[in-house]
Amino acid sequence: MTSVINWASLSAAQQQAALARPALADSASLSSQVAEIIRSVRANGDAALRAYSRQFDGLDSNPLVLSAAVKQAQLAKLLPERKAAIELAYDNIRKFHAAQLPCDIEVETSIGVSCQLKSRAIAAVGLYIPGGSAPLPSTVLMLGVPAQLAGCERIVLVTPPGKPQACDIAPEILYAAELCGINEIYTIGGAQAIAALAYGTDSIAKVDKIFGPGNRYVTEAKQQVSQDAQGAQIDMPAGPSEVLVLADSSANAAFVAADLLSQAEHGPDSQVILVSDSSNLIDAVQAEVNRQLALLPRKDIAAAALSHSRYILTADLAQAVAVTNAYAPEHLIVQTACDDELVEQFNSAASIFVGKWTPESAGDYASGTNHVLPTYGYSKTVSSLSLADFYRRFTVQKLSAQGMRNIGPAIVTLAQAESLDAHANAVRLRLAELNSIKG
Amino acid sequence: MTSVINWASLSAAQQQAALARPALADSASLSSQVAEIIRSVRANGDAALRAYSRQFDGLDSNPLVLSAAVKQAQLAKLLPERKAAIELAYDNIRKFHAAQLPCDIEVETSIGVSCQLKSRAIAAVGLYIPGGSAPLPSTVLMLGVPAQLAGCERIVLVTPPGKPQACDIAPEILYAAELCGINEIYTIGGAQAIAALAYGTDSIAKVDKIFGPGNRYVTEAKQQVSQDAQGAQIDMPAGPSEVLVLADSSANAAFVAADLLSQAEHGPDSQVILVSDSSNLIDAVQAEVNRQLALLPRKDIAAAALSHSRYILTADLAQAVAVTNAYAPEHLIVQTACDDELVEQFNSAASIFVGKWTPESAGDYASGTNHVLPTYGYSKTVSSLSLADFYRRFTVQKLSAQGMRNIGPAIVTLAQAESLDAHANAVRLRLAELNSIKG
Ligand SMILES: [Zn+2]
Ligand SMILES: [Zn+2]
Repeated sequence: MTSVINWASLSAAQQQAALARPALADSASLSSQVAEIIRSVRANGDAALRAYSRQFDGLDSNPLVLSAAVKQAQLAKLLPERKAAIELAYDNIRKFHAAQLPCDIEVETSIGVSCQLKSRAIAAVGLYIPGGSAPLPSTVLMLGVPAQLAGCERIVLVTPPGKPQACDIAPEILYAAELCGINEIYTIGGAQAIAALAYGTDSIAKVDKIFGPGNRYVTEAKQQVSQDAQGAQIDMPAGPSEVLVLADSSANAAFVAADLLSQAEHGPDSQVILVSDSSNLIDAVQAEVNRQLALLPRKDIAAAALSHSRYILTADLAQAVAVTNAYAPEHLIVQTACDDELVEQFNSAASIFVGKWTPESAGDYASGTNHVLPTYGYSKTVSSLSLADFYRRFTVQKLSAQGMRNIGPAIVTLAQAESLDAHANAVRLRLAELNSIKG
Repeated sequence: MTSVINWASLSAAQQQAALARPALADSASLSSQVAEIIRSVRANGDAALRAYSRQFDGLDSNPLVLSAAVKQAQLAKLLPERKAAIELAYDNIRKFHAAQLPCDIEVETSIGVSCQLKSRAIAAVGLYIPGGSAPLPSTVLMLGVPAQLAGCERIVLVTPPGKPQACDIAPEILYAAELCGINEIYTIGGAQAIAALAYGTDSIAKVDKIFGPGNRYVTEAKQQVSQDAQGAQIDMPAGPSEVLVLADSSANAAFVAADLLSQAEHGPDSQVILVSDSSNLIDAVQAEVNRQLALLPRKDIAAAALSHSRYILTADLAQAVAVTNAYAPEHLIVQTACDDELVEQFNSAASIFVGKWTPESAGDYASGTNHVLPTYGYSKTVSSLSLADFYRRFTVQKLSAQGMRNIGPAIVTLAQAESLDAHANAVRLRLAELNSIKG
């Protein structure tokens, strides 16, 4: 049993410590390894990618490009039940993101002064889909659906090569990609895949922005290429995944325990927190966590995450809300007798799951919201992934002669106040021309 | 005279070189100086700020906080003409940004599955307003108006201390701040001001996100604090300011020259490019640039920028558009006989100024668009500053029992496909409960 933290008994410093996140390993060795991989891919292109595929993936050959024929052959292996589930998830994610389509704005701010804010899809986007122990078709949908809706000209998917052959990519991944209209797929993973997306090789043309989760090599590579103007932008900063469940005595302890375990199985560094005003509920949840954990195939991973889980007892629900807002969780699950009231009081969570029928799994897969979320406290400022992240916004302005007459004198005054005489002059010349036309 | 580049005669590599931006000085010494300033402010707080004020600003004392009384005394010095010009600019900027207020979205993606995307203002924002040779009230408006419209709880303004006393801040700055409802003003500048905003001191509480332009110390400090999860987010990556003017034979050469000079006077590293299909226009603009330059107070700065300006002659306007799109300018001014048609063809500029009555000065000050713009090619992916940058978006989802029945089985299937058994279990438990209720 993890010991319960009694919030009201802690000093302010102890409270801060109780909500502290683990320091991210800032490894100079990781950083230099990744820098070397990026340098090598920039220098040697496809040859470097193939060499890394031999070294890291143990593959004698990697064609890099997944051909249409291979894709069709893999798709034929997809189980009908999984196909239907992917389609349901696709439909819901698409409905929610389609409602986010941006509108161009035009305002006449003064007579004859038209200002527009326009949105256009980012031309080329790269989607990183992790491989490893299990395929992640859900991540393909979370990145591919908004890219498709935005109408990005190129949507490039990279994913680690399969085994025993590079082209043995899971049919679930390929079907999700198919639904999203993704035809450009490369069987590369790791930091080398990020380098290829950011800088391009003979086989893989450079993209403008890179999306998607990955291991610490991928995360470090995204960070490095995003710091280089010649590289690529990235979706958001990364950190370990987190859930905070806020539950009162009315909550179902088995449901709460299952939700905590869902987060715990993501990885040993997952952050798992229960906040409650009921010590009975906390006791019941701890008992259920132990019972359910024993039955899980990934129980070692989950147990590692649970070893640093936190159970926080608060004096009342208001204090529970304050704890939640201070922590700023990636996922916030609320299961109380007054969920709807509480939802209005949360000011820092990235995605909120309301009520007993809304497990985190719903948002991970199929409710329609995006599961790419800011974590590690970033949700105080960084937005949950949405359609807007696949667009660039720019402005357009047009003054008529009348518009210049109306605001020109103020511009001259302001430019003079800022000692920018050429700025004033660009307006004075035009006002003089207008006066000569008038005269 | 700068020699004219004949675009069609260049090889692809030469074309790329002709549009290349200067490498940004990546100085290890700058980086370590700034890191030391940040470390010192984190360790010593206000004392470090005061020490830097003595060292860098030559001030014996700096109260750091600008009091309400001092502010009122300074405001009394504001010239009425400047007050009116600031008000006109404020009104136009406010109208344009008010049209950008976000709407919360709610979609029922499946029966019983409600998904919401909500926007809430970032709680605490810091606005950096450069000092130096001239005050920049326009930048106060560009940052302060959207912060005010978004309703950020704290809007903090920092600006380098005045001379001879720290509190001698230009009344134009203070009046712009007053209009934006900014009451928290500190007289500190440089990397130390960014460190104080990001980490907080006894006098200055930490903010969540930092906006605004600055010199290379400020830029480097913003970069460093944005890489630290304990630091603060920033508005966008920085680079030298740029203008590209696309003009044909119908353009007014004096206007075009004045627009190029407006950009040139921003600083010696400003990028100034004219693209035209008319060699007569290019000749006339060059003559005008030389004539107007001689009359400018800041002619040394402008001449330095002009020494690396580029005049590009294209075969036709279609080629001029292609050059423009490849360059991705921060400011794009278009003065041709077919402006409105061309505007639809630009796909990478951050802000577009259409027609002879729309100089860059209009957008810098008073048209209503934001003058904080991505430069250095970043506009291919990074958005021009807008109201959205002062918000965080997050999602809320709620399933009813019916919603769980509808999408639960698909979630179980997908979780199994991804080998995440605890995720499947969180849904199975709920489906079992629903079946028991039913039965
Ligand atoms: Zn999950
Ligand atoms: Zn300007």
